[in-house]
Amino acid sequence: MSKSFEFWFDLGSPAAYLAWKRMPAFERRTGATAIHKPMLLGGVFKATGNASPVTIPAKGKWLTGDLARTARRDGVPLSYGPGFPINTLALMRGAIGLQMRRPERFAPYVEAMYGAIFGSARDMREPKEIAAALAGAGFDPAEILALSGEPDVKQALIRNTDEAVAKGVFGAPTFFVGEELFWGQDRMDQVAEALAS
Amino acid sequence: MSKSFEFWFDLGSPAAYLAWKRMPAFERRTGATAIHKPMLLGGVFKATGNASPVTIPAKGKWLTGDLARTARRDGVPLSYGPGFPINTLALMRGAIGLQMRRPERFAPYVEAMYGAIFGSARDMREPKEIAAALAGAGFDPAEILALSGEPDVKQALIRNTDEAVAKGVFGAPTFFVGEELFWGQDRMDQVAEALAS
Repeated sequence: MSKSFEFWFDLGSPAAYLAWKRMPAFERRTGATAIHKPMLLGGVFKATGNASPVTIPAKGKWLTGDLARTARRDGVPLSYGPGFPINTLALMRGAIGLQMRRPERFAPYVEAMYGAIFGSARDMREPKEIAAALAGAGFDPAEILALSGEPDVKQALIRNTDEAVAKGVFGAPTFFVGEELFWGQDRMDQVAEALAS
Repeated sequence: MSKSFEFWFDLGSPAAYLAWKRMPAFERRTGATAIHKPMLLGGVFKATGNASPVTIPAKGKWLTGDLARTARRDGVPLSYGPGFPINTLALMRGAIGLQMRRPERFAPYVEAMYGAIFGSARDMREPKEIAAALAGAGFDPAEILALSGEPDVKQALIRNTDEAVAKGVFGAPTFFVGEELFWGQDRMDQVAEALAS
């Protein structure tokens, strides 16, 4: 039986971005497959009473340095575009829509969006920047926009977010190995241990 | 020149307890000396707008499991007495008072108090339990109680807590290598890297 784990993420989370970039090597190393679970982190925060760490200025300042140190160690670019943290509702609908309709294009989409948001710090509040990032990765921006507006796609993101909250998710990234929840890009060693046991 | 780093802690923090238990090996490994900085975490929370993670139930549930996994990996006992999290004001005054008056008894005191709170889960809201824990470690409970009430001891804890906030501390444990702040028992690898650079 092949092993798997759930990876709950939002495109707006720099910690989830770092975890995403580490994922191919992690899957090879553990021999386990990630089940990708898009969720709306804002919805999770609202439901759980949690909030972005940047709402505590001292914590936000530490976190910026911490993520920069981690990105440097990982050899991954990390920068923040204007307006960070951005509203990711439309982008996350695009992610789950592709997962539903064209699953083979899901990972390239996430890769391209994370790259635009945290790799090259595009201003992703701007539709034309989103369109350029999509086109650059071989997507038809109009098609993704249409997909994001489909009622069952919108519903699927709500459903995933509700499922996340029901399972105890309060932040991103979150991993599950069976029923056990692991929060944070800094807990992938514990995820690996749980997969090995 | 010998290397050092600051270790900011409160006796009520289980994460700071885990860091404390790891400290002797960490100091040997890094060749650096911890400068112990007692602070009142409740005061830091109030000043920074931060709060205990247990105020978000889902986060508290994760954290309990996370600290248990970490304690197990470290081979350190971890349990919680009745009334956790307790008010540590008097205990922290005792800590800083010993640091001021009898510095050679500071580490044994912290070790004994952490042991009572998280090692054997005594009900440290009870004066007779505190007294028993102190006596068991060779302290005169009446002397520690008197020390905790001295005005300059009280002032020193306020001063340390204010200094923590001024330096950007928002939680425990917090480490400083020079001006660089590292938060969390799970960031001691970064502290070691900073000490090595």
